[in-house]
Amino acid sequence: MNDLDRLAVNTLRFLAVDMVEKANSGHPGAPMGQAAMAYLLWTRILRHDPADPQWIDRDRFVLSCGHASALLYSLLHLAGYDLPMEELKRFRQLGSRTPGHPEVHLTPGVETTTGPLGQGLVNAVGMAVARAQLADRFNRDGFPLFSHRIWVFASDGDLMEGVSSEGSSLAGHLGLGTLNVLWDDNRISIDGPTDLAFTEDVEGRYAAYGWHVQRVDDGNDLEALEAAMRAAAAEERPSLIAVRTHIGFGSPNKQDTSGVHGSPLGTEETLAAKRNMGFPTEPTFHVTDEARRPYLDAAGDGARAREAWTRLLERYAEAHPELAAELRRRSVGELPEGWEDHLPAFSSDGGPLATRSASGKVLNAVAPVLPELTGGSADLTPSNNTFLADRPSFSTAEPGGPNLRFGVREHAMGSILNGMALSGLVIPYGGTFLTFSDYMRPAIRLAALMELGPVYVFTHDSVFLGEDGPTHQPVEHLAALRAIPGLTVFRPADAIETREAWRWALSHRDRPTALALTRQKLPILGDNEERAREGIPRGGYVVADPTDGEPEAILVATGSEVSLALAAARLLGDEGRRVRVVSLASWDLFAAQDEAWRRSVLPPAIGRRLAIEAGVTQGWDRWVGDSGSILGIDRFGASAPFRDLAEAFGFTPEAVASRVRDMW
Amino acid sequence: MNDLDRLAVNTLRFLAVDMVEKANSGHPGAPMGQAAMAYLLWTRILRHDPADPQWIDRDRFVLSCGHASALLYSLLHLAGYDLPMEELKRFRQLGSRTPGHPEVHLTPGVETTTGPLGQGLVNAVGMAVARAQLADRFNRDGFPLFSHRIWVFASDGDLMEGVSSEGSSLAGHLGLGTLNVLWDDNRISIDGPTDLAFTEDVEGRYAAYGWHVQRVDDGNDLEALEAAMRAAAAEERPSLIAVRTHIGFGSPNKQDTSGVHGSPLGTEETLAAKRNMGFPTEPTFHVTDEARRPYLDAAGDGARAREAWTRLLERYAEAHPELAAELRRRSVGELPEGWEDHLPAFSSDGGPLATRSASGKVLNAVAPVLPELTGGSADLTPSNNTFLADRPSFSTAEPGGPNLRFGVREHAMGSILNGMALSGLVIPYGGTFLTFSDYMRPAIRLAALMELGPVYVFTHDSVFLGEDGPTHQPVEHLAALRAIPGLTVFRPADAIETREAWRWALSHRDRPTALALTRQKLPILGDNEERAREGIPRGGYVVADPTDGEPEAILVATGSEVSLALAAARLLGDEGRRVRVVSLASWDLFAAQDEAWRRSVLPPAIGRRLAIEAGVTQGWDRWVGDSGSILGIDRFGASAPFRDLAEAFGFTPEAVASRVRDMW
Repeated sequence: MNDLDRLAVNTLRFLAVDMVEKANSGHPGAPMGQAAMAYLLWTRILRHDPADPQWIDRDRFVLSCGHASALLYSLLHLAGYDLPMEELKRFRQLGSRTPGHPEVHLTPGVETTTGPLGQGLVNAVGMAVARAQLADRFNRDGFPLFSHRIWVFASDGDLMEGVSSEGSSLAGHLGLGTLNVLWDDNRISIDGPTDLAFTEDVEGRYAAYGWHVQRVDDGNDLEALEAAMRAAAAEERPSLIAVRTHIGFGSPNKQDTSGVHGSPLGTEETLAAKRNMGFPTEPTFHVTDEARRPYLDAAGDGARAREAWTRLLERYAEAHPELAAELRRRSVGELPEGWEDHLPAFSSDGGPLATRSASGKVLNAVAPVLPELTGGSADLTPSNNTFLADRPSFSTAEPGGPNLRFGVREHAMGSILNGMALSGLVIPYGGTFLTFSDYMRPAIRLAALMELGPVYVFTHDSVFLGEDGPTHQPVEHLAALRAIPGLTVFRPADAIETREAWRWALSHRDRPTALALTRQKLPILGDNEERAREGIPRGGYVVADPTDGEPEAILVATGSEVSLALAAARLLGDEGRRVRVVSLASWDLFAAQDEAWRRSVLPPAIGRRLAIEAGVTQGWDRWVGDSGSILGIDRFGASAPFRDLAEAFGFTPEAVASRVRDMW
Repeated sequence: MNDLDRLAVNTLRFLAVDMVEKANSGHPGAPMGQAAMAYLLWTRILRHDPADPQWIDRDRFVLSCGHASALLYSLLHLAGYDLPMEELKRFRQLGSRTPGHPEVHLTPGVETTTGPLGQGLVNAVGMAVARAQLADRFNRDGFPLFSHRIWVFASDGDLMEGVSSEGSSLAGHLGLGTLNVLWDDNRISIDGPTDLAFTEDVEGRYAAYGWHVQRVDDGNDLEALEAAMRAAAAEERPSLIAVRTHIGFGSPNKQDTSGVHGSPLGTEETLAAKRNMGFPTEPTFHVTDEARRPYLDAAGDGARAREAWTRLLERYAEAHPELAAELRRRSVGELPEGWEDHLPAFSSDGGPLATRSASGKVLNAVAPVLPELTGGSADLTPSNNTFLADRPSFSTAEPGGPNLRFGVREHAMGSILNGMALSGLVIPYGGTFLTFSDYMRPAIRLAALMELGPVYVFTHDSVFLGEDGPTHQPVEHLAALRAIPGLTVFRPADAIETREAWRWALSHRDRPTALALTRQKLPILGDNEERAREGIPRGGYVVADPTDGEPEAILVATGSEVSLALAAARLLGDEGRRVRVVSLASWDLFAAQDEAWRRSVLPPAIGRRLAIEAGVTQGWDRWVGDSGSILGIDRFGASAPFRDLAEAFGFTPEAVASRVRDMW
């Protein structure tokens, strides 16, 4: 390491330290240990242009260990991203662009929101999948439009989390050669030495996944780091570089201790560390022009590369105008004109249809005109109806395949969908049983937080999946998903509502959508085409009203319980009771409507209201009010044919009608 | 395989097939492929007594691939457990003891509830942890009271799930030599051949975890299976045996296809398979006395072993009366007399205290008198306050250590806690940040479904954890946890409520309890000792009432918002408004109280109600009613010091008082 390297590395290191000191909160240890490898990567390897953080062929840098955020912000600042020194000084303060953990939509140059461990690494797997698909779609002879690589810093914690095991196994299987992971092997976690809990042979494990594996014995050896990174980049397999680092490197009294993991160094130890490393103790946030130079030089190289790429794109537009137009369209998140004309029609003439089947038909109808649509299932493809017929599955041999085979890895699926969505160029979807949404919940939450638009195809959405029993029957999952801010949850009542939910989901690229779909067949609600078309985007609407006067009671239901409500309303109608049926397919959209719409659907004057949903009752009070009632399932389900369950849980037209009569 | 072996294996195989056929639902393929290894294990290795399924030193058999339930039920039936043929014929029917997936509290001989993949294997890790702790506690020279082993059947899907990676890594680290996993390597999953998604070197991966690894090339080779199982049992490390099997073995047209995974064979193919295997085609459910004999002989050996063990226990009671008394006490789930006297006192004289700190004090106060108490954290020990001071961490060197070091493996933690709880002899607890309850949610759900009693220590329970920002700040998690049937969720308001919540949790061994605890310090609510003692078990109670007449408004809050409510009530009191403050620490317990209690706490006549909770508002309508209002946080949080967040989100006494004034 020459003097300039040393200065530049220490500048990075102590910027991070000073940020944590000033905030009196944060994680200085990891940035101190990672500073050299970050410097090397950012000055000699990474191709990026701070002036255009959205350049679609930039190399990606994913800080999976998001608690080292001070390192990332310092890098962004030094490289010339729009993150001025004042922002570094406002680390972890309200309204700053330097929050405690990196947030993608807040800070230019941050590629994904990290902090919950394991997620960033698996987002990077998704980035590599999208990268391979995009290269296959758009690259042409002489036009390598997509040639970027994905670089990840991962901590011990990232590698302990199961989601990273799932994602890494799949990355090995898929041969994602653009993925390079540097493991910050500092042997310290919050509890103390990692050997308290983590003594596996990580390199052996990654070799077993089919990864290229290297080790760098000294995380401050720039030559060794560079050689390893270049070897990784040259590999056709995903690559792991185990880098032996020292948490809190440079701190004379705290290096290699857990004390430096999640707490500021303190004034004294900060001074001691700066002295120890031959770095000026004054002022804090010390950066010289000389120290900036290597970062800015690399950024300059990146700017030139981006300019060359832009010229390449211009020539591409002449040589391949249609592809260029498609790329432009997808870059701005527009769907192709007329795509909605391809949405399928459903009518009751076709007989009853499970909403999962309707979903599969919608997917297959629009896929030919939506090349950005790509997804799959966590090994429940035939049950989730997620397969795009006659299209290949994504693999090394078929890098353009839109069908993704996630294996039994729901959590990685969720995290991969996020990474794919972060490209801004694809619409990813993923399927599993609704009950297993629990396995991928941390990734769903992050999709909502990041304002990404994956679509979740959650089939087998109630106890009415039947014989598989309570382990597979969701009861609390609708409530649990509805609780996530920013996630739109639809539980459509028939094939038409399913199509309209898909229309909404595909048209809204800045928020995730979950579709809760039935295993069992459902009738197509009669005369519902226009109502659903208007009502689904509004979250709830009147499916049926009495023909002979104002309604006296309302049945509010979702999904499979809407046709049940209609049947009950007919029974009650035969007795002269006037009952309205409302489909409340999406609570969050309905809640977001103006009061006029909500009151038109659920008039306050009608106190007799029964909510019907085959799940826990939590939250329904909001819609039925003090004088209403709720038919739900506040217990786990049972293994039985679904008609027996309907009888046992009181989900029959007669039982519903009886509940309503009690309100009179 | 001799003729008797063949008959016994085919009887097992076709019992399972006939069950699925009769139910017209289920998974015949895995049982057909696993029949031989199941037969070998159950007739030559497993030590169990069908007459006493609760014998605490029985070998455990965990069918992690719960979809192969028909195999397990057939085994139980053949071995003489209380599962008559009529139950096999009621497979997957309402009220039967043979549900779609095995359920531990329903069927004698079923050791854990499986179906959600990966869980059974990691439950088994927990069983091995408890087994080691119990052996250390109770075994004495000449008295090997705990000498059982844990045998697991795992499918490809089990090994793809991240939770099993986490659990297996930890099992290798902990050297859990009593754990033996047989991997049903049938190379078929629901989507098709496993090589669609799963081509890693599983054996290499397990070797990297530090496991003993063997392979059996032919899953019907009884000699090879027996040799491998005996070698596994002799090992001091956990052991994986990869067994090459064939899904649907014996089915001439469906063997080795995904078509036999989750659908009945069909009448024709069932007959063809029976003919192919030389098994009588008539009648169905065909079992001869001869075929039962090997299973019953092994069960007889088990019965003799259990009798010998019972005599050993009698001698043990003489030699070690105190330990024997402890074991007896723990076996019946009783806590030691006077244990509650050790619960700590808290008073406002001690100054404010975070509820996470109070929780740590409670744990450490009762641990000396509760040897069954054991737990830890997913690498957040100092933050979760879960460490039992001056006690060792569980390891090969300290198998009696009550402190568990889970590493950054929340999901495995949850699943291990379940496996430990299944011993019926320990009270396990586990800690992480509340937001990361998402990572372990599938295991929490199963704890509730299984009616097990682990305690979850979820600290950092709101945005008021501050600077770590939205990735770490729970907002939807209280709602999401409350939605799980059978899980008791407490959000205590101060140290005293925390102690009472722990008292409740430790006293209720048939349901899981989640404690949501603050990072920030909270005042001890004045004069609250008796109120909390009475009110916490009832889920909600009046913390403070106006001194000068009946209340005109109610502030209903939980956790840290209760002292906020008290401060606001004081402001309002100064204006002459009479305001009650209610702590609604546990919704599920409050909802379970009789109407008189609920009305006494929340009198229907008082319509002015404001709910205050730093989380999503979902579900609060139930408690505040149509005329009430809710102060919550229906968005993600932000990174900032907590006082700034309180200001920004309107969680200050002044802002609350202003909301209440608007109700007048």
